[in-house]
Amino acid sequence: MPGWVSSPARPHRNGRAPAPHPIYDVIFARRDVRRFLPRRVPEAALARILLAAHHAPSVGFMQPWNFIVIRDREVKERVKRLFLRENAKAARVHRGRRRQLYGRLKLEGILEAPVNLCITCDPRRMGPHVLGRHTLRRTDLYSTCCAIQNLWLAARAEGLGVGWVSILTNGGLKRILGIPNGILPVGYLCLGYPVEFLPQPELEKAGWARRLPLERLIYSDQWGRR
Amino acid sequence: MPGWVSSPARPHRNGRAPAPHPIYDVIFARRDVRRFLPRRVPEAALARILLAAHHAPSVGFMQPWNFIVIRDREVKERVKRLFLRENAKAARVHRGRRRQLYGRLKLEGILEAPVNLCITCDPRRMGPHVLGRHTLRRTDLYSTCCAIQNLWLAARAEGLGVGWVSILTNGGLKRILGIPNGILPVGYLCLGYPVEFLPQPELEKAGWARRLPLERLIYSDQWGRR
Repeated sequence: MPGWVSSPARPHRNGRAPAPHPIYDVIFARRDVRRFLPRRVPEAALARILLAAHHAPSVGFMQPWNFIVIRDREVKERVKRLFLRENAKAARVHRGRRRQLYGRLKLEGILEAPVNLCITCDPRRMGPHVLGRHTLRRTDLYSTCCAIQNLWLAARAEGLGVGWVSILTNGGLKRILGIPNGILPVGYLCLGYPVEFLPQPELEKAGWARRLPLERLIYSDQWGRR
Repeated sequence: MPGWVSSPARPHRNGRAPAPHPIYDVIFARRDVRRFLPRRVPEAALARILLAAHHAPSVGFMQPWNFIVIRDREVKERVKRLFLRENAKAARVHRGRRRQLYGRLKLEGILEAPVNLCITCDPRRMGPHVLGRHTLRRTDLYSTCCAIQNLWLAARAEGLGVGWVSILTNGGLKRILGIPNGILPVGYLCLGYPVEFLPQPELEKAGWARRLPLERLIYSDQWGRR
C-alpha cells in the first residue's frame, strides 16, 4: 500500500487522527472552470483521469459509464449552439439585478477547452438483475456521478480544470453525439488547463450564492436533530 | 497553493505530465467495505470527511445535501430490518448457482459500523430558480452523488472504510429517520475502520462480475467511434 494511504492495520499512536492527507488540498482547490488556455491536454494525463473515473464505485460492480472524448471543432460548435439556445431560455426566469448578473456570468468553455467529455450511463449494462439495484433503480446514475467526481478530482491533481455544462438538453446531446436510445448522457464536461484556479467558487465570488455553514446541514440520528 | 496540487501557472518543463499525484493511490485503493472493526471513528476525522463532502461541486452552488450521522443502536437496528426485508426480495431474482453465490455475499455492515450516514438531497434548496438546473432538473441529485464520492475518498485517505447500502427503500428510510416529504435520501453509508481493504473489489474477488476493459468504454467524438 502506498505510504500516503493510511492503513487500518497500523493505527496511529494514541488513537489520534493521521495528519490530513493531500487529497484534501485537491478537494478544497477543485473548481468549476470556464476559462481555458489553448495549451493541449497531455494524452498520458487524459488516460490517467479516465482510469480514475473507471475506478469509481458502482452498484453491483455495474460500471455503467462510457466516455466520449470530443476534440472535433464541429461537434463542439454544435454543442455550443445547443447551449446558447437553452441558456437564452434559462436566463428568462431571472428578473432585474439578478438577470443582469446572470448575463455577465460565463457558464461554459465549450469551444476554448481543448477537450470536451460526455459521460453517459447505460442502464442495461450487466443485464436486468444488477446486485443492489433491485430496490433503487437510479443507483446506476449515482455510480456515473461518482465516476465524474473521481475524474474531476484527478484532473485537478494534474493541474487541469473541469467545467460541468448542465444547460444542455439530453435530447440535443444525443442527436449531436449519436447516442442511442436507452443510453443517458449524465455529464458534459469541458477539460483543459485553466487560466486560473480561483480561490473560491466563481458563483460565490460573483455574489450569486454563498457557501452554507456546514454545521447547519448535519443532523444526529434523526432529521432535524442536532 | 499546497505543493501537491500542480499549478497551471507553473507548467512542467517539456510539457510533460507531472508525476502521478497521491490521489490516485486513494482512488485505486478505495473499496466498498462491509466488514468493520469495533474501533471508534475519531470526531476530527469525521469532521474532515464531512467538510470534504460539503466541498463537492453543486449545480448553481446549490449545496442540496444534508448529512444524518447515525450512532444510535436502535435506529441502526430498524435500518437493518429494512435491509433484511428488501434483500429477501432482491435475492429472489437470481437462480441456481447465482442465487447461492448471492446468499454468501455480505452486502452491508449496518450494525458493525460505528457510524452510519444518510446523505439526502433537498430539491428546493436555494429556491425555484437554481442556475444551471433549468434544463436538467436531476442535477441536484448528481451534485449530492459528487458529495458522497468526495466523502468516500476522504474517508479512504483517513484509513476509514465506507460501504454504500442500496438495498433499502426511500420510503422506509424516510420513516425511520424522520425525513420530511420533498427530501430525497440518496445514499446510506456505513463508516468505520475496516477489517481490511481488499486488493480488488469484493464482487470481483467473489466471481460475481469483472472489471470491464477501459478502452472499450471510450469513444471519440461520436458514440461508437474509436
